[in-house]
Amino acid sequence: MILKPIGYFKSQQKESYQAGRQPDPLGLHGTIQLSSGENYEQALQDLIGCSHIWLIFGFHHNPNWKPLVQTPRSDRKIGVFATRAPYRPNPIGLSLVKLIDIKNLEIEVGENDLLDGSPIYDIKPYHPEHDVAEDAHIEWLESSLVQKHQISFSPLVESQLEFLEGHGLRELKAFILRQLEYDPTNSDKKRVTSNGHYWTLAYRTWRIDFSLSEKQIGILSIRSGYTDEELQDLNTDTYQDKETHRLFSREF
Amino acid sequence: MILKPIGYFKSQQKESYQAGRQPDPLGLHGTIQLSSGENYEQALQDLIGCSHIWLIFGFHHNPNWKPLVQTPRSDRKIGVFATRAPYRPNPIGLSLVKLIDIKNLEIEVGENDLLDGSPIYDIKPYHPEHDVAEDAHIEWLESSLVQKHQISFSPLVESQLEFLEGHGLRELKAFILRQLEYDPTNSDKKRVTSNGHYWTLAYRTWRIDFSLSEKQIGILSIRSGYTDEELQDLNTDTYQDKETHRLFSREF
Repeated sequence: MILKPIGYFKSQQKESYQAGRQPDPLGLHGTIQLSSGENYEQALQDLIGCSHIWLIFGFHHNPNWKPLVQTPRSDRKIGVFATRAPYRPNPIGLSLVKLIDIKNLEIEVGENDLLDGSPIYDIKPYHPEHDVAEDAHIEWLESSLVQKHQISFSPLVESQLEFLEGHGLRELKAFILRQLEYDPTNSDKKRVTSNGHYWTLAYRTWRIDFSLSEKQIGILSIRSGYTDEELQDLNTDTYQDKETHRLFSREF
Repeated sequence: MILKPIGYFKSQQKESYQAGRQPDPLGLHGTIQLSSGENYEQALQDLIGCSHIWLIFGFHHNPNWKPLVQTPRSDRKIGVFATRAPYRPNPIGLSLVKLIDIKNLEIEVGENDLLDGSPIYDIKPYHPEHDVAEDAHIEWLESSLVQKHQISFSPLVESQLEFLEGHGLRELKAFILRQLEYDPTNSDKKRVTSNGHYWTLAYRTWRIDFSLSEKQIGILSIRSGYTDEELQDLNTDTYQDKETHRLFSREF
């Protein structure tokens, strides 16, 4: 069967490492931009009355499939059909999201785990009777020895996050929680480096220092990834965020 | 994106009119036969520990899409994205089923709404945390004036059903409930005819007589769809069920 995208997902989550593993209560909203000229205006009728929708989409960053996958929640490889990992024979994703609003061919949805640019193949209403399984369980997940880390934020970091949210960087707290709750020091999958007594996680042009002991993580501070020299160079600003970094440096 | 089936669904539900609209507690089990030579044995590891799975499959009986669909649950047409109807831009189905057993490349699942021969494109575990929406609703469904019919079976029918179940026709009760609960006299979609004081629903070679008043349906009796002459003709038996019909006629 040939699938033709009905539209594409728009989100600030642009790279695989930014996406939540599952929709995250701290995450950002996203938008589905449906194609025009296809009668989708009609097909959307009554959708606004559906509180939650299933999105069937393409894992466009993951072209290859693997029968066994290493997930952050397990210390051994798991059969891909027993996981929601993207490395499937047919790279189809399935996510439940809250429907927020529909304007013409733009559908705003709540927190989600889709990357920017994901092709959308279908939208279905969540059915409160038929889509709920009683007493459901996933054995490998429950019996996994891999434990969630407890993450605490220092008062400094809390005020730094507040400052950055005020300057448009709203996704940082969710990003930190997602990246560090499982397998926090995996430098193959994350931009994380050891500095002896503490670790540093990179997010775009920002650096997050954290301590790690047993299953406890302390977020110590956030700092700019630019050097003083780079910050003073007014001619180049590839990421168009040097002004925020300068204000941040003055404040903290 | 080109989807290649990972396998096909095997079921006694062979025609669209036989399938439940949603998985039905009275329905039959089905089997997914996965393709061999694809390493799916490995991909299946740990799946047996998942109590419920999502099947992503093809609506292979429905090649055309319609932006607005008439569903049995509504008295007006509804945008297809707000329904689970098969007439979608990409004819992809999504169903939650109970996982019963796995033997080699055969996966047995519980009650379901898939037709025999449906191509299966993906299998994902149901995630008890992420796949549940709190306070979910579908407005058009709740505000629909179309009401469910109350269906009662006569004692004669109950014993006829028991007899037929004993002779391998296990799906008849679920079929009757599904076909008649909404829009029972729709002869465009169902093999149903009026006989003046009562109605008759056809299921393969069987005929089900029922009465209808307001929202009450009484299942009066089940009878053979063969004439006496046809039953006595021992030379032809296209559906290979004449022996059951003869036994049935002797009993009732």
